[in-house]
Amino acid sequence: MRIAISDPDDSRIEAYRAVRERDLVGRQHRFVAEGEVVLRVLLNQSRFEIESVLLAESRLDGLGDMLPLLAPETPIYTASRQVMDAIVGFPIHRGVLAIARRGVPEPVESLLSRLPEKALVVGLVGLANHDNVGGIFRNAAAFGAQAVLLDQETCDPLYRKAIRVSVGGVLVVPFTRVPSAEAMVRALEAASFEVIALSPSGRDVLSHIKPVRRTALLLGAEGPGLPPDVLARTRTVSIPMSGGFDSLNVATTSGIALHHLAFTGSRR
Amino acid sequence: MRIAISDPDDSRIEAYRAVRERDLVGRQHRFVAEGEVVLRVLLNQSRFEIESVLLAESRLDGLGDMLPLLAPETPIYTASRQVMDAIVGFPIHRGVLAIARRGVPEPVESLLSRLPEKALVVGLVGLANHDNVGGIFRNAAAFGAQAVLLDQETCDPLYRKAIRVSVGGVLVVPFTRVPSAEAMVRALEAASFEVIALSPSGRDVLSHIKPVRRTALLLGAEGPGLPPDVLARTRTVSIPMSGGFDSLNVATTSGIALHHLAFTGSRR
Repeated sequence: MRIAISDPDDSRIEAYRAVRERDLVGRQHRFVAEGEVVLRVLLNQSRFEIESVLLAESRLDGLGDMLPLLAPETPIYTASRQVMDAIVGFPIHRGVLAIARRGVPEPVESLLSRLPEKALVVGLVGLANHDNVGGIFRNAAAFGAQAVLLDQETCDPLYRKAIRVSVGGVLVVPFTRVPSAEAMVRALEAASFEVIALSPSGRDVLSHIKPVRRTALLLGAEGPGLPPDVLARTRTVSIPMSGGFDSLNVATTSGIALHHLAFTGSRR
Repeated sequence: MRIAISDPDDSRIEAYRAVRERDLVGRQHRFVAEGEVVLRVLLNQSRFEIESVLLAESRLDGLGDMLPLLAPETPIYTASRQVMDAIVGFPIHRGVLAIARRGVPEPVESLLSRLPEKALVVGLVGLANHDNVGGIFRNAAAFGAQAVLLDQETCDPLYRKAIRVSVGGVLVVPFTRVPSAEAMVRALEAASFEVIALSPSGRDVLSHIKPVRRTALLLGAEGPGLPPDVLARTRTVSIPMSGGFDSLNVATTSGIALHHLAFTGSRR
């Protein structure tokens, strides 16, 4: 349902107003997705319900193939670049925004119980950087991880920038929060996962690991790493590096480890 | 040699003025490094000559162990936060800057000829994004690549942000430019490298590759990839991904491939 908007103060596009300011506060029931690539994933591969779309008029032609995928009653707001920028509060170069519902968070036990017998899960502890969390979800989607678990300190994957950096990966890979790193390990063990904790001080070397049927990969933040009590009760694994330069980005680390776990043993 | 600066217009700190504006223009003979981590690499592991250092007074105590590593005649300018911000032109939170000399670029033949018999080299084609180039150098340093080759379209690794993202990796791994991707492949072949070109359409699968004694890994930009004539004359290799989500960041890709090449076969 197309609705042309000419007044930036139109009450129908309230949800698109002052995007950055609301990003900072956080949105409890909704999230904002931006850009054509992300909208395509949201429409085709995601579990989230789209409430509405706001498009620059100049983008309509290029997006024609996607719009019929929206439910007929979903509003497609269109506006000039100028009106769109005024609504959003900054120049929105991509000219493509959508508002979707977060849905109800799934308890971790329920999420893990519906995974297949052979499964790969990622657990994030204390990852406060949206670029890193977005990058990890991108890798999780690329290597077919079935779920991502987040502790309370890990930032919101449905933050606009994290979605963009993930190239829509956060919309594809199911995720849920757990109360703590310890609760994460307990839930994974209860669901018969071998829990691998990546750490520079890990006892085993990643390239020697043969994944079992259900494997979970835990990642901590670049400085502090995973907490000692998690390292004490899991299989710790390191990625050896060249002398004197012991430094990898955590998203890159997730890519290296997921690639190894996805393609070793099973040799797909 | 410590020199306290109290006047932002002091002619001795000319090289630190308007850092961002000069970043955009580019510096022909010098570069700017920022932050404690990068300064540490510059002092301890790099081949570059430091011309001077500019430090916020509040940082002096924390950096005390590093400063004796500077040549005695190298100026260590110190200033208050306020004066430092006025010199640089924006709030320089890290409070640590250095100016170093680029040195004379080494011809590719000379660089390759002095590498050991067993060597791993990275070649970058058309990579215009400083985050990606910085990220790739970080991985090259972490996995002990001996050199990085850049075509003319690849951006400057000595740009301030690329150095920072590389965590100093661009200061550690030798690099040089070649006139074109074709010249890169020719120089590598002449130096007995097997040239592996990463591409989503690659014939071989990365996890099956056993690296030979001298291996070069070529990477192109995320959209266009490597040019067809390069793919036609090299061994093309792909990283298989999960159905429907065929997308990896190029820096992550470099990390996955370098990890595989560094630890397979030799099983270090």
